[in-house]
Amino acid sequence: MQDFSNVKVVLVNPSHPGNIGASARAMKNMGLENMTLVQPEQFPSGVAVGRAASAVDVLESAIVVNSLRSAVAECGLVIGASARSRRIPWPMLTPEQCAAKIISEKNTTRVALVFGREDSGLNNDDLQLCHYHVQIPANETYNSLNLASAVMVICYELHKVVLKAEELTPRDKYDLWDQETATGEQVESFYEHLERVMITIGFHDPENPRQLMHRIRRLFGRIRIDMMELNILRGILTNVEKKIKGRED
Amino acid sequence: MQDFSNVKVVLVNPSHPGNIGASARAMKNMGLENMTLVQPEQFPSGVAVGRAASAVDVLESAIVVNSLRSAVAECGLVIGASARSRRIPWPMLTPEQCAAKIISEKNTTRVALVFGREDSGLNNDDLQLCHYHVQIPANETYNSLNLASAVMVICYELHKVVLKAEELTPRDKYDLWDQETATGEQVESFYEHLERVMITIGFHDPENPRQLMHRIRRLFGRIRIDMMELNILRGILTNVEKKIKGRED
Repeated sequence: MQDFSNVKVVLVNPSHPGNIGASARAMKNMGLENMTLVQPEQFPSGVAVGRAASAVDVLESAIVVNSLRSAVAECGLVIGASARSRRIPWPMLTPEQCAAKIISEKNTTRVALVFGREDSGLNNDDLQLCHYHVQIPANETYNSLNLASAVMVICYELHKVVLKAEELTPRDKYDLWDQETATGEQVESFYEHLERVMITIGFHDPENPRQLMHRIRRLFGRIRIDMMELNILRGILTNVEKKIKGRED
Repeated sequence: MQDFSNVKVVLVNPSHPGNIGASARAMKNMGLENMTLVQPEQFPSGVAVGRAASAVDVLESAIVVNSLRSAVAECGLVIGASARSRRIPWPMLTPEQCAAKIISEKNTTRVALVFGREDSGLNNDDLQLCHYHVQIPANETYNSLNLASAVMVICYELHKVVLKAEELTPRDKYDLWDQETATGEQVESFYEHLERVMITIGFHDPENPRQLMHRIRRLFGRIRIDMMELNILRGILTNVEKKIKGRED
């Protein structure tokens, strides 16, 4: 039986403590225990404890951080819940596909399931930190789910796949990979490095970015870069800088 | 599109009005509209309205009755949610099987989905009024779901089966992509360009390639690069060459 010790649920700016408690309960019902809260409006909270019922332990061990970026810094797979279509489409998963993806990871890969604010969901900056977006299929005329309900559906599908996985493990293409997946923090450093080089070579103007970094993130976010690949990309950038600098000296 | 006008959700003795509202929201999210309440402790209720969000219409049209028996009197299929194994085993469905069963009914058959009290669920008398019991698979050490969460899971499975019946799901993640995919030839030209630049900057020695191009191909081969992304990558390479050449002139 797979445990979910490598998976965490991240709630970004939850405004109602009741939803934090109800999310903790939903998580524990489905076998998940790690909760991270990004700038919750009110936490700890007696209301959260009441709604958590017998999942108070999930609340007690919840980690509070200041930014989504730090919440996912060590994660190799980040999936964000999104109700809407975006201007620049992102790789979308159904809840079942989301669950299958997580189960197919090595259990050393840290995984974050990210949920947004009750009223507005994840914003574009948040969503760009995600490798995939997951959308819960819903009534077209009213597709805004309660936060804890969304957590429940995603965790329920995850639990269901584990039950099935004991009979039949769908091998993912990364199952037998020869390298560890790069962490979110390492990939962020690569983006920063690439951005510096693009500015140096006059390809990118931060004053007039034209969504360039957005597209770069979507490009490399789809790859799930491994460690050796990251080293190759960083090496290329470093050599470009050296070559240019060498000429300038 | 099948509507669910023949299906109703029956809540037996709900004690917290918040759960009535949250159940209404979950129902409407998944395309269900008919709610029947058996002796609710508090209804109508402002708390229920608050938690219903944009599903207040479901609350407003909810029918209140005095017994489960009268709630299901005209129903041809009654399915009750049950968390526990019973002394006398009953035909059990998973949430998926429950959904498949409902969809397979003639849509003239009235169907009731019955949920019990928050603290104790349906009692034995209630359960005997059901043709089937449905059990949501959950963590063995904590399988008590919040009432509205249970309503959400059952209605979500129902909604999912309808989507599948229409073959609208699952969407491929590239289904709604905004750009054309680059052709194999275009991607090959990119590899050649990248190789030239890597040689120029001293990162790559074709005499001693150490599988570098092999790894580069595996890296970019994993994404289906789109045309705009290809143009970005080619543009970066061209600018690197210009910058270096500019220094050399």
